[in-house]
Amino acid sequence: MSSNCAPSATRYRRRSHHAIMGATLELVSEVGYSKLTVEAIAARAGVGKQTVYRWWPSKAAVLRDAVLHLCQDASGAVRDIPDTGDLAADLKAVLRATADTMSHPRYDLPARALAAAGIADAALGAQLVSGILEPQLRLYVRRLGAAQRSGQVEAGIDLRVALELLTGPLAFRWLMGDAPLTHAYTDTLVDLVLRGLAPRPS
Amino acid sequence: MSSNCAPSATRYRRRSHHAIMGATLELVSEVGYSKLTVEAIAARAGVGKQTVYRWWPSKAAVLRDAVLHLCQDASGAVRDIPDTGDLAADLKAVLRATADTMSHPRYDLPARALAAAGIADAALGAQLVSGILEPQLRLYVRRLGAAQRSGQVEAGIDLRVALELLTGPLAFRWLMGDAPLTHAYTDTLVDLVLRGLAPRPS
Repeated sequence: MSSNCAPSATRYRRRSHHAIMGATLELVSEVGYSKLTVEAIAARAGVGKQTVYRWWPSKAAVLRDAVLHLCQDASGAVRDIPDTGDLAADLKAVLRATADTMSHPRYDLPARALAAAGIADAALGAQLVSGILEPQLRLYVRRLGAAQRSGQVEAGIDLRVALELLTGPLAFRWLMGDAPLTHAYTDTLVDLVLRGLAPRPS
Repeated sequence: MSSNCAPSATRYRRRSHHAIMGATLELVSEVGYSKLTVEAIAARAGVGKQTVYRWWPSKAAVLRDAVLHLCQDASGAVRDIPDTGDLAADLKAVLRATADTMSHPRYDLPARALAAAGIADAALGAQLVSGILEPQLRLYVRRLGAAQRSGQVEAGIDLRVALELLTGPLAFRWLMGDAPLTHAYTDTLVDLVLRGLAPRPS
């Protein structure tokens, strides 16, 4: 009996979880973060409100996990930065993929709502930084560190500041929506930043 | 009679305007943007709700003008970028002043609330970009353009992308609150960016 029951309960949990994530992303795109409620998420997902609250303490926590799942699903998400030995090519590939993900409506609206909520609310902001942003930034530090060791980046350059030259402009352009996130833009960004990071002829 | 009446009416309008701006900044810092209302602004400013609506169509418009006034008041606001001929010194002075302003609680909370609202709402975001962001970015284009003409910046470099290497990291660090906006940071940022912009020895 339990061998029949347990997988079904697991399946139910998995289906509910998946439905809640999807409902959250749809709703925040439709009504915005300030009008998002746990009640509406539960109704759209076809589960009870208590099912949502069993897993998440607040709408902020549901949205954070929904965007996190979305990032992990996105084909263009930065799970790792390749190291082919060609730093410019590797960074261009990653920044193009990141720009494509950020520009995609499925990601853009929920991630924008979450970012806005985190900017206005310091506690949520700190969670987003430690849970989403910092793990991504560490990938850049690792890749730039490898390039520094192989002599493609000047020794002594502060890699934390260096990586922000890549991620800061892209992220700020995305948040402001003041100019398009084209591949031509991200390629120019990489070329200009690497001019500054390259070792000087001695 | 009109010579007595007009200045008094003008004084009243000026006082009301000033009180509304101050009340808006205080309230958004206290309760956040989503709980900010025109009613509460009017009550705090000691004016009728209709006085607020006579000048502004929405709470977003009041907050935008309040932050704009604050920027213009702030001693560290970028009204112009000096041109002493020393590009690094001029940019360091401006970025230090900008970081100081952004870090100041009087500016930080209202400007953060406004930025968050603009990120979540495309129409408001477009107003902030054209009314606040773009005029600032044009100052950088002008200063970098002068440096390009005097041979301190490589010819052919896209100045719009170049300026984002300065403003993007600083703004994104401010919005994320993931690392402090120190003068050491902004100086390092300027040095690293100018390494990339400097003409290559031919």
